[in-house]
Amino acid sequence: MNASAGAALKPMLQPILITSGEPAGIGPELCSQLPPSLPETLGRSLVILGSSELLHARAKNHAPFRWHTIQSLAEIKPASIKPQWYLLDVPLNSPSTAGVPTVANATYVLNMLNTACDACLQNVAAAMVTAPVSKAHIAPMWPGFAGHTEYLAQRCGQSRVVMMLSGGNLNVALATTHLPLQDVPKAMTPESLSQTLDIILHAFKTHMGTAKPKVLVCGLNPHAGEQGLLGQEEQTVITPVIQQFQAAGHDVTGPYPADTVFQPKHLTGADVVLAMYHDQGLPVLKYASFGQGVNITLGLPIVRTSVDHGTGFDIAGQGVAHAGSLLAAVYAAHQLALQQKPNLSLAALHAMP
Amino acid sequence: MNASAGAALKPMLQPILITSGEPAGIGPELCSQLPPSLPETLGRSLVILGSSELLHARAKNHAPFRWHTIQSLAEIKPASIKPQWYLLDVPLNSPSTAGVPTVANATYVLNMLNTACDACLQNVAAAMVTAPVSKAHIAPMWPGFAGHTEYLAQRCGQSRVVMMLSGGNLNVALATTHLPLQDVPKAMTPESLSQTLDIILHAFKTHMGTAKPKVLVCGLNPHAGEQGLLGQEEQTVITPVIQQFQAAGHDVTGPYPADTVFQPKHLTGADVVLAMYHDQGLPVLKYASFGQGVNITLGLPIVRTSVDHGTGFDIAGQGVAHAGSLLAAVYAAHQLALQQKPNLSLAALHAMP
Repeated sequence: MNASAGAALKPMLQPILITSGEPAGIGPELCSQLPPSLPETLGRSLVILGSSELLHARAKNHAPFRWHTIQSLAEIKPASIKPQWYLLDVPLNSPSTAGVPTVANATYVLNMLNTACDACLQNVAAAMVTAPVSKAHIAPMWPGFAGHTEYLAQRCGQSRVVMMLSGGNLNVALATTHLPLQDVPKAMTPESLSQTLDIILHAFKTHMGTAKPKVLVCGLNPHAGEQGLLGQEEQTVITPVIQQFQAAGHDVTGPYPADTVFQPKHLTGADVVLAMYHDQGLPVLKYASFGQGVNITLGLPIVRTSVDHGTGFDIAGQGVAHAGSLLAAVYAAHQLALQQKPNLSLAALHAMP
Repeated sequence: MNASAGAALKPMLQPILITSGEPAGIGPELCSQLPPSLPETLGRSLVILGSSELLHARAKNHAPFRWHTIQSLAEIKPASIKPQWYLLDVPLNSPSTAGVPTVANATYVLNMLNTACDACLQNVAAAMVTAPVSKAHIAPMWPGFAGHTEYLAQRCGQSRVVMMLSGGNLNVALATTHLPLQDVPKAMTPESLSQTLDIILHAFKTHMGTAKPKVLVCGLNPHAGEQGLLGQEEQTVITPVIQQFQAAGHDVTGPYPADTVFQPKHLTGADVVLAMYHDQGLPVLKYASFGQGVNITLGLPIVRTSVDHGTGFDIAGQGVAHAGSLLAAVYAAHQLALQQKPNLSLAALHAMP
């Protein structure tokens, strides 16, 4: 790809915003590891949100000089200028020490999310990419905070979204996300599962150009309940919903035992595996994607991707964290935002450098 | 390895018994796909248990002539004779059609398990290897039948055993096995988890020659409960038990989030990952082992291994099922039974052809 020639021929695309996340985690230093040439490669400016002082301090030997610090997104140069890196300065509430999170900075983290989300809703930015936050240090200040996905859904006025992770040639969507395990079975209702499938089918058709998405649905129980012997939810909830979607002409099959669905004979030709809960689907996705996984929220009115890992408090500030997942998340956001490419598929996304 | 020379120098080892499992499944045809030379390679006879008529019918173009049909294990030739294949004829209760299971053959399946288990307990055989059975077609005749592992534990008089799957350079043990998901949280008690860890540590020390087994323990909830925000069991059950084992000098750590523990930075040097339940640990194990996984029961007074897959009713009788996991299970049983090799490790097992 001749990026320079391409940039000269077409107008610059809208910027993508990157929230640097929990200030005591690895998010700030990961931002500094993204390639200096990335804006030019993508043909759009990239804007990191976070405390300028913090980000420069954590950048250490990486090249922070490339960031043009701004106080407002309105300062981003018009589309005729070469794409570049910006840093939207968001003041910390309290000084932050790497590896030592504090609830005092909860609203700092939320401010970044709000700014990025609203800019996307207002069509000022094309997409938002999020570095990790610490639920345990936000929930005391924002009761019920259960993670980025749920928070952004609420801010966008969506009652239901779908968390999907992508990497290693796998796409895994979740029917439930950040629930204690004991709350998972009762969260599995025909309504919730139907809404989840609707969102997945719509997202693949409209944002990924997949005419007839092929969805593999896991069972809830081991061996997909083994004909009722190991649980009833397959018979009472999952199978009836699958049959409804099949009757409507969709390529939705299952319920498959989760420990066999991730085999080539099932995965070949499939677009996405729908796991019923977090630890049923994500260990294999993250094993397969080797630190390059991307978290994509389906069902939002904005494009939002994220890293697939946590805050890394144990290694924060040491410069040893790898930015592979963050870089993959930026590429994914870029691709998903390219609405002028109706045939974009996640296979193309996986093939990105 | 020079198998022929080795066989000439040492007495033949005790036989290994292979139960052919559900007659309508893929077990019978898988038995016929095992290499004719396998007994000589291992230096011990191999005995398939099942209906002679059924096994010959399902063998089709494979070479059943190598089987010496016997009616009793007492017919196995003495140790001075060259190792060979036997078929211990067990009569079906009812004719079996591939892909069409019936509860009528439940006691046929159980008879094979009983015969093999008792022969191992009586030291007539070195180990048993099991092809898949159908719980749904045994439970009506044997109420409460929850799988091989639980059945064999009961027959051996063990109140608790541990199911471990091995393959793809991973070992994954389960704290709970074949339970409906909704029953998992309440099955997690300090006593049960302690017993599970005791069995794992004992098995690795005594049967695998691992002086100080390194065990990684998963949390029960997503993100290992994220400090109580996504569930309490980490704080009330799992962490206290881990601390007890650490205080006793064991290398037992966690609880780790299940979606991050299967990364190289955690797995390096680890002997086994202890997952809290079936679908938390087995999807990644089976993904990593590509159809070569082995199910090993820890804590039995006998050596028992198994395939890592089900009955395959959808493909039974078509000759398309692959015997990779059954072959790996035979090798694993052979290695585990070699008590004269105190330094045997699962790494050596993984290195088998």
